Amino acid sequence: MNHLQNSQGTTAGEIAKIANVSRVAVSRAFNPDASIKPEKRALILKLARELNYVPNHAARSLVTKRSHLVGVIVPDVCSPWESQEIDALTTSLQSEGFATLLFKTRADKQIDPQLLSYIRGFNPDSVIVFVENVRRETLAKVIGRAVPIYVEYDNQTSAAKDQGSGMLYDRLNVCQRRGIEQAVALLQGFECKRIAFLDGHPRSLAARERKHTLSEIMAARGMAAPIIVPGDFTYDSAHAAILSQFRVDNGVDAIFAANDVSAFGAMDALRYSLGLRVPKDVKVIGFDNIAQVKWRAYDLTTVKVDLRERVDALIRLILRRLKTPDAPILIESLSTSLVVRGSVG
Amino acid sequence: MNHLQNSQGTTAGEIAKIANVSRVAVSRAFNPDASIKPEKRALILKLARELNYVPNHAARSLVTKRSHLVGVIVPDVCSPWESQEIDALTTSLQSEGFATLLFKTRADKQIDPQLLSYIRGFNPDSVIVFVENVRRETLAKVIGRAVPIYVEYDNQTSAAKDQGSGMLYDRLNVCQRRGIEQAVALLQGFECKRIAFLDGHPRSLAARERKHTLSEIMAARGMAAPIIVPGDFTYDSAHAAILSQFRVDNGVDAIFAANDVSAFGAMDALRYSLGLRVPKDVKVIGFDNIAQVKWRAYDLTTVKVDLRERVDALIRLILRRLKTPDAPILIESLSTSLVVRGSVG
Repeated sequence: MNHLQNSQGTTAGEIAKIANVSRVAVSRAFNPDASIKPEKRALILKLARELNYVPNHAARSLVTKRSHLVGVIVPDVCSPWESQEIDALTTSLQSEGFATLLFKTRADKQIDPQLLSYIRGFNPDSVIVFVENVRRETLAKVIGRAVPIYVEYDNQTSAAKDQGSGMLYDRLNVCQRRGIEQAVALLQGFECKRIAFLDGHPRSLAARERKHTLSEIMAARGMAAPIIVPGDFTYDSAHAAILSQFRVDNGVDAIFAANDVSAFGAMDALRYSLGLRVPKDVKVIGFDNIAQVKWRAYDLTTVKVDLRERVDALIRLILRRLKTPDAPILIESLSTSLVVRGSVG
Repeated sequence: MNHLQNSQGTTAGEIAKIANVSRVAVSRAFNPDASIKPEKRALILKLARELNYVPNHAARSLVTKRSHLVGVIVPDVCSPWESQEIDALTTSLQSEGFATLLFKTRADKQIDPQLLSYIRGFNPDSVIVFVENVRRETLAKVIGRAVPIYVEYDNQTSAAKDQGSGMLYDRLNVCQRRGIEQAVALLQGFECKRIAFLDGHPRSLAARERKHTLSEIMAARGMAAPIIVPGDFTYDSAHAAILSQFRVDNGVDAIFAANDVSAFGAMDALRYSLGLRVPKDVKVIGFDNIAQVKWRAYDLTTVKVDLRERVDALIRLILRRLKTPDAPILIESLSTSLVVRGSVG
């Protein structure tokens, strides 16, 4: 590793000389992944601080081909699930010596090829993309050496798809079925007959899989098909859709929402506009387990996706691929489970 | 601008030759700020896509001394205000040809000099820092050519301080007084006598200024001093502190919370644990105007900091400083105002 001279003039070579260590040791001291004796690292970092020496990642990235940047592409930074995931990811990436490079998709949640070119221009070591926001074919065209991590849902056949397409990506597969099964069992145990599925954004594969899996499980249990109420993951659309369902069509005795935020919108519509009680008149279940589900106003029963497990799996995938670029494709799997709170029973 | 060869082998020179334009034109086509005829830009971008050419920002940054990265350093990405600000910032930066580089402070909201060195290694063009997370002296030692933007509160004397310290930073000054004045007038109008200030994190200068300004205004209006209830901006601490205030000490007839999220915690404690009504028994006011204040369960009266205005001002400061590095220090100011909703009156 060859650190270029920094703006104040101190070089890695000078630090090495004063510390009486090799230049390689100076490089290693700044690389959290490199093996170096703790006291040697401490000495080098102390000297570097005193002499105002900083390795330049931009310069270094031309030499090492590493930028230490991980791109994350999301539709909304401010929706609670995404913001909680980005927060945890950034903490973990920072502790591994990487920084989060944040990008937003278009308002329709799609990604222009131009944005991908733009992202590639920053030379990220890895990119985390959600399968609903960009097709693999588009991604393959533009992302060169970056390692994309795909987040998929309940996908049994993706390894087979890889073989067909010739595009091999590491990925995280979120198995949503288990939590949904538990949710249905709970509602059936409370003898709910008319169950609504409050849908997510039409472009969301996660929501599509949730709806599909729910219908399948209810049919297998001999229950009537769920009533599909349109939604887009937001509080406002959920609030309006539930009002319309109860006022124009018929009410239901349970609502399974595609995410927690729309479950909040549904609960507020039931309580403040329809004068109904939760859970006595209508039971409500969400999906995600964001921090706000514990707020007393909601106390929401929800299908939990373990954020810590999810972020740890993403970090493992990124580091493994960077360490061994030729390793075979790895698919990490994540399960879900129901957390029962006051909004049911 | 000299684009190095990209990994697929196509160079800016080759694109220029095929498009029959100059190499400068190719550079301009990829720079959203550069002036170039729309049809010329379209042609170059089309050819670049077809030939899989992408300018490399890392390589370019060594030549132009621009990385097109803007660092943002926050304690929590997932608190609603921060996530909403980062979302809006990222959208604006992206449309100006920049990318957001995200960093987190320590859990105690301070920034290690080591983190600043680390950030400088990424060579950001600008860094947005919050004055409570890092002292100017620390920042000056480490940030070299990056343009820090300080966010300050109600600071009348900072220009004078600059002169003394020799450290000159552009900044955004959030004038919190106006909204607080309106809040106090409203509470006085409803004849509230015992008013609690539910405090923010002890290290937050924003909260300290809010408390200070509130006390000053109440004294000037001949009202009793506010009762200070400890807090840290979180729902849970607010919930516990309000329970303790009502059960152990005496109740109050109004709560002014240092942010919206702790106002939610206070409201839920009042309603679900203390059996009190909002606004009938206790009036509640928050600060920030995050998206969730409109949720029917809260419908919170709050002091609004206009997010759009705030982000626009930050972007203006960044672009101006990059365009004219020697321009005099600029302080943008932002006012606040009260938005009245159901939690009062």
